[in-house]
Amino acid sequence: MSDKPGEGQKLVFAADLGGTYLRVALVDESGKIHHQAKQRTPKGDSPDYVVDALASAAERWRSEDGRRIAAASIMVPGTVDNENAVVVQAPNLPALAGFPLKAVLEERFSWPVLLENDANAAAVGEMWMGAARGCRDVVSVTLGTGVGGGVILDGELWRGAHGSAGEIGHSTVDPFSNLKCKCGNTGCLEMFASATAIVRMTREDLPHFAKSVLHREELTAERVYDAGRGGDELALSVFKRFGVYLGIGLANLINIIDPEIIVIAGGAVNGWDLFARDMQREVAERAVRVTAQQVKIAVAECGDNAGLLGAARLAFDKLAGE
Amino acid sequence: MSDKPGEGQKLVFAADLGGTYLRVALVDESGKIHHQAKQRTPKGDSPDYVVDALASAAERWRSEDGRRIAAASIMVPGTVDNENAVVVQAPNLPALAGFPLKAVLEERFSWPVLLENDANAAAVGEMWMGAARGCRDVVSVTLGTGVGGGVILDGELWRGAHGSAGEIGHSTVDPFSNLKCKCGNTGCLEMFASATAIVRMTREDLPHFAKSVLHREELTAERVYDAGRGGDELALSVFKRFGVYLGIGLANLINIIDPEIIVIAGGAVNGWDLFARDMQREVAERAVRVTAQQVKIAVAECGDNAGLLGAARLAFDKLAGE
Repeated sequence: MSDKPGEGQKLVFAADLGGTYLRVALVDESGKIHHQAKQRTPKGDSPDYVVDALASAAERWRSEDGRRIAAASIMVPGTVDNENAVVVQAPNLPALAGFPLKAVLEERFSWPVLLENDANAAAVGEMWMGAARGCRDVVSVTLGTGVGGGVILDGELWRGAHGSAGEIGHSTVDPFSNLKCKCGNTGCLEMFASATAIVRMTREDLPHFAKSVLHREELTAERVYDAGRGGDELALSVFKRFGVYLGIGLANLINIIDPEIIVIAGGAVNGWDLFARDMQREVAERAVRVTAQQVKIAVAECGDNAGLLGAARLAFDKLAGE
Repeated sequence: MSDKPGEGQKLVFAADLGGTYLRVALVDESGKIHHQAKQRTPKGDSPDYVVDALASAAERWRSEDGRRIAAASIMVPGTVDNENAVVVQAPNLPALAGFPLKAVLEERFSWPVLLENDANAAAVGEMWMGAARGCRDVVSVTLGTGVGGGVILDGELWRGAHGSAGEIGHSTVDPFSNLKCKCGNTGCLEMFASATAIVRMTREDLPHFAKSVLHREELTAERVYDAGRGGDELALSVFKRFGVYLGIGLANLINIIDPEIIVIAGGAVNGWDLFARDMQREVAERAVRVTAQQVKIAVAECGDNAGLLGAARLAFDKLAGE
């Protein structure tokens, strides 16, 4: 490493390939983000659009920092195969399903390329630079459009025997609910504890709350949250349900994995003050006592950058031969 | 190792310290059981009774095989601390709670002593000599008086950050049930998929099945099973419920851990032909598709000896410095 940080340090080109946005950054070994950019993810039925977008994003920084970029690390919103080479499935970017993204990008980039599931990378980011610093057994739960999970055991990502570990969003928290999830199951956590769920539950309950301010506007999770902060009873009851179901899901996770810390991330974490009490009560009542008393449940600290940081860290670890 | 097995081979004194029975065995490095014995677990408010029973069981074999016994490995029905030295809690042997069993036994035995949770040892036994041979990511689920679980990831026991990983029996499968479990939670898997649950569910439903043969006899899980095999509708409906709830619990386990194989053990596994179809349907509908199609769910093969074998294997691994 150079004595002048920012001069000789290695960089990783990290990309967060989301269903809506493609975010890219250059990250150094200390976790500092040097450049950052964001664009809409190109949609289409060919993976070429995505490859081109990644390549041109990298091209912009190549002239300036090209020699210092040691690897590219790409987060995908889906399952990656055991060799982290092929995207097995990506419900929000279906064109990538079965696509050998690693090999194609390595040809374009001339850097070694790492692929990782986005929720896994976010967990690594929070352990490196966020709420789980110093912890070795970490689960991150991202409450966004859907609900994702990343599992780190003894300091290493646990991807599962078939690459699908940590699918906490599709664990069943209400088995006799009729609410059908896009995964095929009914009563998934995602149906109750995501931004999408906040909007759906609010819409369903509107008729029972004649005085709610939420009759007046188009529903978004943020507006429901604002209404809740203002004391709107409908909004408060929605976040209460959100908290109860999240607590049931987390208690199951705790009883099965027994992590040191659970980091809660994603847009819906903004509603923490409206759902945390119900969540915590369910965990206290449902998780094995001795563990419920010790496990930490904390708000994520890296925000939108958790995944980019985690992706970079995974690449640095790989370069170091870990 | 000697050329004559049974002559020079090392042995482990393995003990399965259950709530009802204390079972002991001498096991060699090939997994062969040389001697085996069983007695009722002494009850009392002092841990001395248990220590004396273990010591006198070991004494019987010491004269004959003492020099070849290289370690003692004791399974306890509860949580062991991080150093595997102290029993943290053991609901069915409360006198052991907080007791430094390892140190006390090492003084009595003159062998190094290993302590392990019984469900963890059973998982290791099935991986070594049973249904999970050749697998690295294994969960064993024991359906007995209660429901226990042991988790092996990448060939190593995963005990959790606080020693309580794999508590699948206390994962919530019916959050809005009023059935209170002794753990404090409501709607635990153990309330629906244990031998105890079979008897309770049968008793509850008896009034609705006037023609059931089960009116005639004292209820045991085995009698309900026999009735089911004979086509008794009450018994069949009880095992159906058992299978549905077990499937919900296993699907959650699969979505969170993503194991290669789940081994189902314990007395209630006798009812496999009566509950397996419902269990498998729930798993297929609720677990992440790609994983549900690949994960194996198999009946245990080591029977009552899984734990003794696993305990022995853990001791041999420890002796080998793993």
